[in-house]
Amino acid sequence: MKRIITISRQFGSGGRTIGREVAAALNIPCYDSEIIAKVAEASGYSKDYIEKNGEYAAQRTWFGRAIDFAGGVGMVNNQDVIWIAQRQVILELAEKENCVIVGRCADFILQGREDVLSVFIHADLEFRAKRIVEQYGESDEKPEKRLKDKDKRRNAYYKFYTDMEWGKATNYDLSLNSGSIGIDNCVELICDLYKTV
Amino acid sequence: MKRIITISRQFGSGGRTIGREVAAALNIPCYDSEIIAKVAEASGYSKDYIEKNGEYAAQRTWFGRAIDFAGGVGMVNNQDVIWIAQRQVILELAEKENCVIVGRCADFILQGREDVLSVFIHADLEFRAKRIVEQYGESDEKPEKRLKDKDKRRNAYYKFYTDMEWGKATNYDLSLNSGSIGIDNCVELICDLYKTV
Repeated sequence: MKRIITISRQFGSGGRTIGREVAAALNIPCYDSEIIAKVAEASGYSKDYIEKNGEYAAQRTWFGRAIDFAGGVGMVNNQDVIWIAQRQVILELAEKENCVIVGRCADFILQGREDVLSVFIHADLEFRAKRIVEQYGESDEKPEKRLKDKDKRRNAYYKFYTDMEWGKATNYDLSLNSGSIGIDNCVELICDLYKTV
Repeated sequence: MKRIITISRQFGSGGRTIGREVAAALNIPCYDSEIIAKVAEASGYSKDYIEKNGEYAAQRTWFGRAIDFAGGVGMVNNQDVIWIAQRQVILELAEKENCVIVGRCADFILQGREDVLSVFIHADLEFRAKRIVEQYGESDEKPEKRLKDKDKRRNAYYKFYTDMEWGKATNYDLSLNSGSIGIDNCVELICDLYKTV
């Protein structure tokens, strides 16, 4: 019997919505931005800073590279502090209660546990581009460009902290294309599996 | 409404069994070794030769490398002839009737079609090792070694002909871990989706 559902998702795929709807249908909490608040409390960083650095590799500047170099010789940078706090928050949540956890490498942090159903949600660029404009409005940058940039930085973050490939089917129990399958069908399917396996 | 299901699978994951059971439940044909017979007829190669070369990159020998080099300068090798015949057989099957097609890069050959539900079945090494010993018996080689070799060669074959990564979640509508979810649940879930989306 599964107790915890982790949802990793491509930006704009509807993974966050799916997480919330699954949690509502199963009557369990969904942790997403709530994790940011808990990490802020534990680490002392602002919520905004954590939101920007808790899932995405930082954009490369000469200063960032200097920090990385310092990390290479044994120093811990801000992003590492957030990673450690985030990991701790996720482990505590998983001990406390049945829940849905969206993003933040929870699939990796809880890997190997029999009581976890790990899900990856993805969709093609066209579906996601349409969705982010609906959800977050237009911006100066083309939606496809924003998506590619987010994908790249989430990918780099995941790779750095987990040493695994993000979006590889073998990392998850279940991977779904929300564009072709539909968000409602994804919700139903995850709920069914949670109750069955 | 989907008409065709393609099933890609890691060796030993039960993908072939799942394909057969899904087809039986939906009362549509399942094409697997049947494709080999059709390709043999079309290409003139033996079934045995096609089975060995229709999904797996050849083991590297100096002779194989020489053939590859010849391919690089414009020659077509045996494996290419099989690929072309196999592709043709799959396109014809997809036109003819609703069906399940197991393996042989059918997901790539039919990609972008709205009437196709593409599925990837995987499982961890332990589950697959146990399963191949049950299904195919012991051999001199350790099952883990056999699996790793098969994975590597299917991977290389897929990469060569499709220029995509094998087992990447974004290539499929649905990816399932048959080890954690269970073979029967996979069958049920695929049948449900086929009828719904």
